[in-house]
This record gives sequence, structure tokens and C-alpha cells, in this order.
Amino acid sequence: MHKVIFDTDPGIDDAMALLFLHQHPQVDLVGITTVFGNGTIDTTTHNALYLKDVWNISAPVAKGAGVTLNPQRPAGEPPRMVHGDNALGNVEVPEATLSQPDGRSAHRFIIDMVRADPGEITIIAVGRMTNLALALREDPGIAGLVKQVIIMGGAFTVPGNVTPVAEANIWGDPEAADAVFTAPWKLVVVGLDVTMQTAMSRSHLAGLAARGGRRVELLAAISDFYIDFYSRFVDNAMVIHDSCACVYLVAPELFQTRSGAMRVVTDGIAIGQTIQKPDDRFFPPSPWDNHPSQLACVGIEVKKVLELIDHTLAPQA
Amino acid sequence: MHKVIFDTDPGIDDAMALLFLHQHPQVDLVGITTVFGNGTIDTTTHNALYLKDVWNISAPVAKGAGVTLNPQRPAGEPPRMVHGDNALGNVEVPEATLSQPDGRSAHRFIIDMVRADPGEITIIAVGRMTNLALALREDPGIAGLVKQVIIMGGAFTVPGNVTPVAEANIWGDPEAADAVFTAPWKLVVVGLDVTMQTAMSRSHLAGLAARGGRRVELLAAISDFYIDFYSRFVDNAMVIHDSCACVYLVAPELFQTRSGAMRVVTDGIAIGQTIQKPDDRFFPPSPWDNHPSQLACVGIEVKKVLELIDHTLAPQA
Repeated sequence: MHKVIFDTDPGIDDAMALLFLHQHPQVDLVGITTVFGNGTIDTTTHNALYLKDVWNISAPVAKGAGVTLNPQRPAGEPPRMVHGDNALGNVEVPEATLSQPDGRSAHRFIIDMVRADPGEITIIAVGRMTNLALALREDPGIAGLVKQVIIMGGAFTVPGNVTPVAEANIWGDPEAADAVFTAPWKLVVVGLDVTMQTAMSRSHLAGLAARGGRRVELLAAISDFYIDFYSRFVDNAMVIHDSCACVYLVAPELFQTRSGAMRVVTDGIAIGQTIQKPDDRFFPPSPWDNHPSQLACVGIEVKKVLELIDHTLAPQA
Repeated sequence: MHKVIFDTDPGIDDAMALLFLHQHPQVDLVGITTVFGNGTIDTTTHNALYLKDVWNISAPVAKGAGVTLNPQRPAGEPPRMVHGDNALGNVEVPEATLSQPDGRSAHRFIIDMVRADPGEITIIAVGRMTNLALALREDPGIAGLVKQVIIMGGAFTVPGNVTPVAEANIWGDPEAADAVFTAPWKLVVVGLDVTMQTAMSRSHLAGLAARGGRRVELLAAISDFYIDFYSRFVDNAMVIHDSCACVYLVAPELFQTRSGAMRVVTDGIAIGQTIQKPDDRFFPPSPWDNHPSQLACVGIEVKKVLELIDHTLAPQA
């Protein structure tokens, strides 16, 4: 069993990833931490509590950062054109939730969980890296106690999605991402290099909903808006970014990785770009030296990844 | 006939490119301008005069910039491990040359030539972009009078060679390159995306020298040192970066290009990176907006390029 804290900003593809973690038999979801990004922190926390209610998830929800690690940085507006005004595709969400947030902040929750279960917790982070960076800042020693960190974000060998070189999660808090990438823990980055290959069509999702029942029907409903947005990139389909990071947890053999130190550009026109120095390449002394080698996903077996998601979201009878 | 000013920092692969331009029947080499880079400006100018002498080149040599466009930027040391102490592979070069430099600075020479022959001059620049940027700064109107600018430099879809993202010519004067890339002239960038595919083996070069006589024998002699360096990347061969830009001039059909605005990163860890916003990609407002679309080479027909170089350097009897 993989004990997982899911750090997330639901968010439409976040919701699918959450359901994947909740339903996968080898995953023990021990906490959900929220961060601003696809919506404000109030919106994403509310959405996490709502999904916990409707999907009957036992893991607590801890509310996280609402601004970047460097509070001077302008936060910007949520990407309403991608995820809708409420970050769940404008599908109506009740104002009240049965579940209430954990009393702790997300980064404090992460520290407590990791300290309580050293070497056992995997963190899957699919939004801005702010909570993880705050946890490292408050308690750097947790880096050696986390089992693994899996990130959805970045673009190493392909263009970005918010600038020609930057992906949204990293661009949204580049200082946080640089702190997380250079910390001495085992880290894997599942970026646009692989996620942009995972298109799930509207009809495929409708088929899944027919087999998967009300849980997946909700996924299909909130995804309509997202698919409309993504149709400029892929034909009548959505790219399931965040689920890829969850699939990596249980089936890393479906990905090809490249090892090397990683840094994030924190200013200038390339801000938010993720840059890896592959271990097998020689360069003069550089800002990548003396940082740990981490793994970037550069290849993916798309068909098998989609099949695994299918079987997890809508198990065969 | 293509009237060409060759802006260069000889340099070993520069020397091959110079001989290609001198010998190609469709090229009228009307000037050689020097810039610091593979050696100091005194070294590269001396080498250009020496090659003019031994190859009997009629074009004048104008001495150019010895420091970056922003003189505050540290110039750094020449890459002696790549091109040798004298930038010609440590093959002995006489201290005196018959030829003397033109009385004008390189950037003034460029302005004068372009103003004298509007719409007719192609500039092929294979070193730092300092001279071109100085010419644009002194006389911005030349941009509309140059026929075409062909650059060897940069890396758009592949790693850099001095950092994980930066190529040496651009990294060596990023402000100059950004000014040159964003000027309103027709510009093509022949970068590592294609040049790293053009390996010419030591034995191939020896065969060329046997057919090409003393001119090519000199090329083969100075290239030994460079091939020793490049053997860490390609087996017993040299990458003929600068000649690729010259081949583009006479045979652009051997390259695939991508159109889009280009910027150069001028600070931070990605300094020197060339970033293109492809015309067919959508992004929010960005620093690429309102700059001219230029061409980046992203594909090359290696075999035909090497054949064209062969036939030009050592014409068949």
C-alpha cells in the first residue's frame, strides 16, 4: 500500500486524479491538502471538501496557501477559461459541505503526517508547490523522511502552456518549485512532456460514466467545460494531467525517465521554466551543480496509462 | 549571386565556413567582419587576415567588437579547450600578415556596405552578435535594407552546449542576440537543433584534403585539435556548425524551419537561451508579442549538406 498525501487545487483534472487515488486498491489516501491555483484557496478548499463528501473519502482536508511563497509576487487571476468560475467546470456545487477542514494549515499537516510516519508517506503534488515549499522551510528535516514526491508540472523537452517555455503549476510559484526540486528527497516530475499525450475523449469519458456510476458521472459533467477549452489542442478530448502523476505512483514502469539536477527559472522572460541538466551531459560549472539528481518523465505508454485509469475509475464487474 | 558579409570569430569551424563562402560559385564575399569569441578580438582578426592571405581572398577584413554590447558584462575567457590557444587549433600562424584590416570598425563597415547596396547584402553571422547589434544601434534603418541575416547560434528544441539551455554564441552576448533577433529584418537561425547532426569525420576531412589541395590541407590541420575536443560528443569527428549557416544561404531547401517571434534570455539561470513562440501556438500576452516572426531551423538533410560542402571545398575534376 502507498500512503499518499494529495496536494491539489481542484480543478477538473484534479478531481479525476483524486477519484483515482480514492479508488485504487494499492493507495491509502491519508490526507488532502489544498493550494490556490485553478481557483482561489477558498474555492479549491471548498471543492476538495465537496468531493470528499460526495465520494465518501475519509482522508482529512487541510487548507493550504492562498498566495505564492514570495508574497510580493502578484498572484494573478484563476484560469476561469480552463476550469470555469468555480474551478469545477461551472457545475453547481452546494454552498455548505458536511466535511470541515482539518484545523491545521496544509504545510503543518504535511509536516505532522511525515514526522508521524517516517519513510512511509508519498506526496503527490499537482498544483503550485507552495505548500511543499512552506513545509520544507518550516522543517527542512522532513525531506529525508518523505518516501517520494511526485509532481505534476513543468515542461522539459516540449513547449510550455502559459508561455513558450513555462507550465502553469510551476509558473504560478516558481520560487516554491525551485525549492521543492532542489530539496534532498526522491522526486519525480510528470510534466507536459508526457501529460500532453494523454487525451481522453468526451465519448470515452461518457462510456466510463455509464459503467462507473454517479462518481464518474460527476467527473464527466465537470469535464465538459474543460474539454471545450482543450479542444483547441486536442480534438473533443481533455488532457488528464494530474491523473498521470497518480498513475506514476502505482505503475512507474509505464514511464521513461531522465535523471539530472533540476532548477526553475524565477525571473525574466523564461520565468517558470523547468530546466534539467541530464546526468550524462557535460557542462561548465553551473547553477545545477551540487543539487540532487531527480527524475523527469520524458516518455509514456499512453494506451496502458489510459487503461489503468479506466479500470480504476470504473472497475469491471 | 549572393553578396555576403561574413561576421566571424575564426575559429576552426569558422575557417571551413569562410573557405566555403570563398569557393562557392554563387557567393560574392564582399566583406569579413571579426568579433571576439573563439579567441580575443586581436586573435580572431589576426586569424581572419591570415586566412585571407593564404587563401587569396579579396574581401576586406574589418575588426569588430572585443567586448559584449553591455560592457559591464564579464567577457570571460576564450574557449581554449575547443579551438586551441590561438583559436586555430594551435597550428602555427605567422605573426605578420600581408593583409591589413580595413580602417573602419566592423559595425561601421556593415552600415556602409548595406547603405551602399540597399536590399542586396546578406549577413552571415557565426559568432557573438555584438557587431550586428552595434550596427543596429548606430543606424536602425539598415534593418530594412539588409537582404537577409543568417545566424549560427542558439538551441530551440535541443539542449545547449555551454549550459543545459544556452549555446555559446548567444550566451556570449545575450543582449546583442536579443536585439538582433527582434529587429525588423528577415532572419534565419541555424542552431544546435540542426548543426549537432552534422558530424564530419577525421578520415572524411583527410580525404577532402587529398582532393582539395593546400587550402583544405590547412583546414584538416587546424581541425585535429577541434576533433579531439568534439570526440566527447561524436566519434572522431567535428561538428561543422558555421558551415551550416553558409549552406543555408545557397540551399535553404535542405532545412526545415519553424516560424515565430524569438527572444533571448538575458539574465538568471537560463541566460543565453533562445526561445521562439511558434506562430501557430496560442499563449497569453507575453514578451514575444509585437516582435517579428523569424525562422528557426529545426530539421536538416545532413547527407546532402555534407555533400554540398564536399563539392564546394574540393570540386570534382
